[in-house]
Amino acid sequence: MRAAIAGSDAVRGTTSPNPPVGCVILDAEGNQVGLGATQPPGGSHAEVMALVDAGTKARGGTAVVTLEPCAHHGRTPPCTRALIAAGVKKVVFAVADPNPAAAGGRTVLTDAGVTVESGLLADEVELGPLRAWLHYARTGRPHVTWKYAATLDGRVAAADGTSRWISSEESRAQVHDLRRRIDAIVAGRGTILADDSALTARSADGTADGTSVDRQPLRVVVGTGDLPEGARVLDDAAETLHLRTREPSEVLAALGERGVVDVLLEGGPTLAGAFVQAGAVDRVLAYVAPTLLGDGPVALGASGVSTITGAHRFRVEGVTMCGPDVRISAVPDRN
Amino acid sequence: MRAAIAGSDAVRGTTSPNPPVGCVILDAEGNQVGLGATQPPGGSHAEVMALVDAGTKARGGTAVVTLEPCAHHGRTPPCTRALIAAGVKKVVFAVADPNPAAAGGRTVLTDAGVTVESGLLADEVELGPLRAWLHYARTGRPHVTWKYAATLDGRVAAADGTSRWISSEESRAQVHDLRRRIDAIVAGRGTILADDSALTARSADGTADGTSVDRQPLRVVVGTGDLPEGARVLDDAAETLHLRTREPSEVLAALGERGVVDVLLEGGPTLAGAFVQAGAVDRVLAYVAPTLLGDGPVALGASGVSTITGAHRFRVEGVTMCGPDVRISAVPDRN
Ligand SMILES: NC(=O)c1ccc[n+]([C@@H]2O[C@H](COP(=O)([O-])OP(=O)(O)OC[C@H]3O[C@@H](n4cnc5c(N)ncnc54)[C@H](OP(=O)(O)O)[C@@H]3O)[C@@H](O)[C@H]2O)c1
Ligand SMILES: NC(=O)c1ccc[n+]([C@@H]2O[C@H](COP(=O)([O-])OP(=O)(O)OC[C@H]3O[C@@H](n4cnc5c(N)ncnc54)[C@H](OP(=O)(O)O)[C@@H]3O)[C@@H](O)[C@H]2O)c1
Repeated sequence: MRAAIAGSDAVRGTTSPNPPVGCVILDAEGNQVGLGATQPPGGSHAEVMALVDAGTKARGGTAVVTLEPCAHHGRTPPCTRALIAAGVKKVVFAVADPNPAAAGGRTVLTDAGVTVESGLLADEVELGPLRAWLHYARTGRPHVTWKYAATLDGRVAAADGTSRWISSEESRAQVHDLRRRIDAIVAGRGTILADDSALTARSADGTADGTSVDRQPLRVVVGTGDLPEGARVLDDAAETLHLRTREPSEVLAALGERGVVDVLLEGGPTLAGAFVQAGAVDRVLAYVAPTLLGDGPVALGASGVSTITGAHRFRVEGVTMCGPDVRISAVPDRN
Repeated sequence: MRAAIAGSDAVRGTTSPNPPVGCVILDAEGNQVGLGATQPPGGSHAEVMALVDAGTKARGGTAVVTLEPCAHHGRTPPCTRALIAAGVKKVVFAVADPNPAAAGGRTVLTDAGVTVESGLLADEVELGPLRAWLHYARTGRPHVTWKYAATLDGRVAAADGTSRWISSEESRAQVHDLRRRIDAIVAGRGTILADDSALTARSADGTADGTSVDRQPLRVVVGTGDLPEGARVLDDAAETLHLRTREPSEVLAALGERGVVDVLLEGGPTLAGAFVQAGAVDRVLAYVAPTLLGDGPVALGASGVSTITGAHRFRVEGVTMCGPDVRISAVPDRN
């Protein structure tokens, strides 16, 4: 399953609206004979890729897959049929498919005499590569990670507006890595005006590094006003969508329609405040640098809270060091 | 040495301006036969307490002590003399005494034929119970820990001024524990006006709990204006000093003169900003709650920084969870 998860992780950001699934085929003796992951939309699913890789060695073997194999005809034939046809005796999957149209894979397999086990490393898959897609499948809305870099006193820029660099090289490299694996980067028009951000995945020093980044996420700018001519976000490094609205729900609807599953909200404070207020932030990812400013804009702008008991509550999911910075990941606390 | 450190830790906040030292006596066979810690000013030092506890079993044994034994006559006779008189054969200490008047303990002991070793668990002692005192001995200034509780977006209160409770019960309990072990709590006049803070060590729910707290730190309010009559900080739960200044250096000088070694600066933002600007914060202790406000005062007020390259730089020393909150400890990065 770890190999399947790694396969799944490797195709994140390339499969939406399909899930980035990983699959490993073991032969009858338990040797790994095939590995596959979801191809871009219209292409094969992970199970089919892994079966092709395994060839006849799949017969009598086991398929280990991060998501319950689908039993429906979408753009591709059902994976359950391919597994049965290949003579696989056992299927182990991590997470059940929440999608009613695709579900039933377990039943189809069991009916065909295949042994089915589920739940192996389910948490790792749920919080890892399938997190955004599972959220999307369950709620119909893209998954939103609000990411920001701030000082220990919560500032995202100094009094004069300068913000290069608030966070460390290590943190910036990690963010560019993250950008490579999501579907869309969303920012408010204010961030474009202030920083002329390019909103592309680059190397940590900020230089475009075309050779190492073969795919760029969709760039989305939110705001009713115009974008300045010549803004970097309008260059041809990636596609850009300008949504002339101030409503997070409209942003999510527009992105959902385009098959965007995994969104990275990069601020600024005003837009982030609107998303938090709308309950549209599914994860907060804070890179906190051990510096103090005492002045300058704060990470989060107005989010509809006037008194302490009304604070938006989250739960810390993980804290790690990223170079000299503290990286805090938190999810809504819905109790 | 761990037992000596524990002894040292237990008397923190009761010994200033003397160091909270711990000492263990082992007999000739290596069994622990004595334990002692520094008594309040004018009382015996740790070595003497431990020797009294050990009695004649100290002869031929070893003294394990967190700080180099003193060789000078202060309010008490030198500890080196007591160790030699008791027939101790070996002395192991963690940290050398930086105080020129007290130093030379090692030489006196060696000259008397006692084996001396040093450096054992030195880091633990330097960053633990002797941290503030060592800073004081080296710089002549009290050690200042700026502690605050903030939301993930850096707010210390909501828009309407409410701040109960920003941090969790676990964090509040830890802070009250901290208050019990320091010499003075410092706050700005604004915090008294806004919150009518009592600045005492209490139980986490905020109720005074006289039975469990036998000692209260000195309360210090900084600000040129008057304190409101009937302010809780003026009650008789502890001594209160009102310093009519806005200069951190004057605050530190006044406290140093009174023998205050270990200071907890509890804000608010204005006073903390002045301390940070003056380079008078030796440690930042942030309790970050996983909540978002989007409005309200930020932990740190103006600290003389106008552009990002001028940010005050710290280094993260430790990150731990405290209940649901993230506790970040950082020290000035003087490179
Ligand atoms: N360190 C970091 O992680 C980071 C990240 C991003 C930005 N920043 C900093 O943040 C600052 C920019 O802050 P900002 O708040 O102006 O940026 P912003 O949130 O990116 O943009 C604000 C704009 O977004 C539009 N908008 C979208 N939804 C809105 C809503 N519900 N309510 C109001 N406006 C909405 C408005 O544009 P229209 O007027 O066109 O409607 C508004 O002017 C810069 O200093 C930048 O450096 C820091
Ligand atoms: N969550 C937390 O950890 C925490 C802790 C403390 C406070 N708070 C919050 O902080 C808010 C109060 O903020 P605040 O900034 O007004 O409080 P503050 O920093 O405690 O007090 C400000 C006052 O300190 C005096 N002062 C001392 N040195 C100064 C200097 N160098 N420059 C200017 N004034 C100086 C001034 O009094 P004079 O005018 O008399 O000279 C000034 O009015 C409240 O909402 C409170 O709840 C939160």
